[in-house]
Amino acid sequence: MSELTQFTITEQSAAYWTVTFNNPPINLVNPETILELQEIVGRIEASSELVVVVFDSAHPDFFFARYDLSRAGETPTAPGPTGLPTWIDLTTRLEQSRVVSIASVRGRARGAGSEFALACDLRFASIERAFFGQPEVAAGVIPGGGAIERLPRLAGRAKALEIIIGADDFDAQTAERYGWINRALPDAELDDFVDHFARRIAKFDRFAISEAKRLVNRAAVPPQPEALLESQTSFLKAVQRPEVRERGLRARSVAVEAGADFELRLGHYLGQV
Amino acid sequence: MSELTQFTITEQSAAYWTVTFNNPPINLVNPETILELQEIVGRIEASSELVVVVFDSAHPDFFFARYDLSRAGETPTAPGPTGLPTWIDLTTRLEQSRVVSIASVRGRARGAGSEFALACDLRFASIERAFFGQPEVAAGVIPGGGAIERLPRLAGRAKALEIIIGADDFDAQTAERYGWINRALPDAELDDFVDHFARRIAKFDRFAISEAKRLVNRAAVPPQPEALLESQTSFLKAVQRPEVRERGLRARSVAVEAGADFELRLGHYLGQV
Amino acid sequence: MSELTQFTITEQSAAYWTVTFNNPPINLVNPETILELQEIVGRIEASSELVVVVFDSAHPDFFFARYDLSRAGETPTAPGPTGLPTWIDLTTRLEQSRVVSIASVRGRARGAGSEFALACDLRFASIERAFFGQPEVAAGVIPGGGAIERLPRLAGRAKALEIIIGADDFDAQTAERYGWINRALPDAELDDFVDHFARRIAKFDRFAISEAKRLVNRAAVPPQPEALLESQTSFLKAVQRPEVRERGLRARSVAVEAGADFELRLGHYLGQV
Repeated sequence: MSELTQFTITEQSAAYWTVTFNNPPINLVNPETILELQEIVGRIEASSELVVVVFDSAHPDFFFARYDLSRAGETPTAPGPTGLPTWIDLTTRLEQSRVVSIASVRGRARGAGSEFALACDLRFASIERAFFGQPEVAAGVIPGGGAIERLPRLAGRAKALEIIIGADDFDAQTAERYGWINRALPDAELDDFVDHFARRIAKFDRFAISEAKRLVNRAAVPPQPEALLESQTSFLKAVQRPEVRERGLRARSVAVEAGADFELRLGHYLGQV
Repeated sequence: MSELTQFTITEQSAAYWTVTFNNPPINLVNPETILELQEIVGRIEASSELVVVVFDSAHPDFFFARYDLSRAGETPTAPGPTGLPTWIDLTTRLEQSRVVSIASVRGRARGAGSEFALACDLRFASIERAFFGQPEVAAGVIPGGGAIERLPRLAGRAKALEIIIGADDFDAQTAERYGWINRALPDAELDDFVDHFARRIAKFDRFAISEAKRLVNRAAVPPQPEALLESQTSFLKAVQRPEVRERGLRARSVAVEAGADFELRLGHYLGQV
Repeated sequence: MSELTQFTITEQSAAYWTVTFNNPPINLVNPETILELQEIVGRIEASSELVVVVFDSAHPDFFFARYDLSRAGETPTAPGPTGLPTWIDLTTRLEQSRVVSIASVRGRARGAGSEFALACDLRFASIERAFFGQPEVAAGVIPGGGAIERLPRLAGRAKALEIIIGADDFDAQTAERYGWINRALPDAELDDFVDHFARRIAKFDRFAISEAKRLVNRAAVPPQPEALLESQTSFLKAVQRPEVRERGLRARSVAVEAGADFELRLGHYLGQV
């Protein structure tokens, strides 16, 4: 079992874990994050008593900030137990797991961070502090980690296109109206709401929960691995285009001028690149 | 033609019927309810002038309360005209009928009661008095009457999972935001709104309505009978598990202590079992 | 290249066009409108630099009013480049185009006007001035231009049935809640919002946008041409029924009494026919 350096697992009980992401300074998703998430999914699958797992963040301004594009070339793609590349392997296993996964979002969830939340079963978010974005198109690439497959099912084609092509930030209430998340809650209530929900279902019958999820998965037609694979391949290829490097350089100069505000209002600044 | 003991059919006109459910004390759905609903669907199909049918309740606190699990072993499963077991037969025939069906919900619609509403074409509900729930998972079983197939299409996978696995009550406004119902209306406006809608379409051309519904059904991919059958079979099997009997006994002791409030706030009390 | 008589194309830049509909007195859609829209789609496809096109109206009370049923017999059906009849050809080409299309709706969008908006990728509308309707069923026909295929995917089966069978007008905020449009905006903000969005994406990388749209289209399962064809055929056949002529005569007498208000509140008056 590999050690975790970016995540802390807190066992609230045998049936209920909290997994907290902490990758200073801004919770960027990098190749190590992906490998650790895959390790965590393995531990979830291996636990015979686990019913529900909540993913949250140690940083109040960033849930999972975004993928570190400068390291996209190092993206792990070794086939996992499903035979699929790492990220697709871990997200589809999470989706198919008999354990219920919940993203409790405070701070920014962008790019692969939003896509990880989309692979969780449920998503709750702070009205005041959560923001969502798929900024890839503004960087000259496309979302390669599942947003293209999962957003249209939750938000419909038109809203998914607005999100993905507009590449802007969405506050939590708009994200709720668009179907991106289950619901937006006042920041002061988010933790209690999620904890109450998790403790409630942790007491329910494990068979009933896993059977319900299995049957919903069948009816809700989860994305096909081939579709996810085509998007990931398109992303990894697009990253290598010279236009992307050029846009990256321009973004960097905007970022230098904007300082810390750049990552806080990424959607805004990408409109200036 | 069998007699109806739990339902009253009021012919507002040849084109517009109201079907009122009345099964004191709390409008439980039991095996007889299912057989009478099947009879009603037969009458709907047999009427050559009917355009729209509204289902409502004689009890202001209960629309269709929930399935009487203590009689689950008596669930009728004789194949209907479609060749499918009773409940699946009647709900898919309602969905495919050229007549438009409307659930006008005042009071609780839980379990099979929610699932009957989901098989109607349209759902309107009272903001103050309507509540929705799929409490099955809290009882150790799963929704076997169509919620698993129909909710993900209306609410998306994430909200459907929250509803089904959380097994809690939803007020009408949240049910509207989640896609469970078409819209929530102030209690004082509900009857007039539904009546106005029904009278409006009752005057329209019957061919245009049935052709529109046929074409929408084709595009909206109604659930496959095999999927509905798998869920019903899973439910009928799950009901026989010893864990379910044990949870039932614990629920009964909570119910004794709670009194009449138990059925009014079922979602709340199931969290204490 | 045919001349345009009902539309003006304004090139805000090589990457961003505005196409304004102006067919006095009330922006009825007629056979010429369809042919000109097909010509416009051809120009959109032919432009190598175009990224985004916004469709709006010169008339503050009518976006695209509705189809002129009195000329339904002249509906052009010559196969376009896709081999499909004119309207299906142009709407599916718009949907598949690498260019992003936006309907900016002020005034009424009814019937084929709503269906054209539904074939655009994104829809934004004025809270005070935009209204949506599919009035066909009230006229004894059915929506034959894509609403039956596209509305259920955006709004779900139940809301799509309410819209299509009820044949009433929906204000922009209800249309937003129903998924008909991306979002409703205060009238004073609509133009700036749409212009800001269009200018933003016009600066993005064309490859990234078209690749994102291609991949979303794949995941969002756009309607099959055969389904669109079946609905159009059903519409063109239904128009010839004697009941439709009779309802048309009755509608005309209501219209004469109502004056200009008839087209402004079409949904209301169709309830009196």
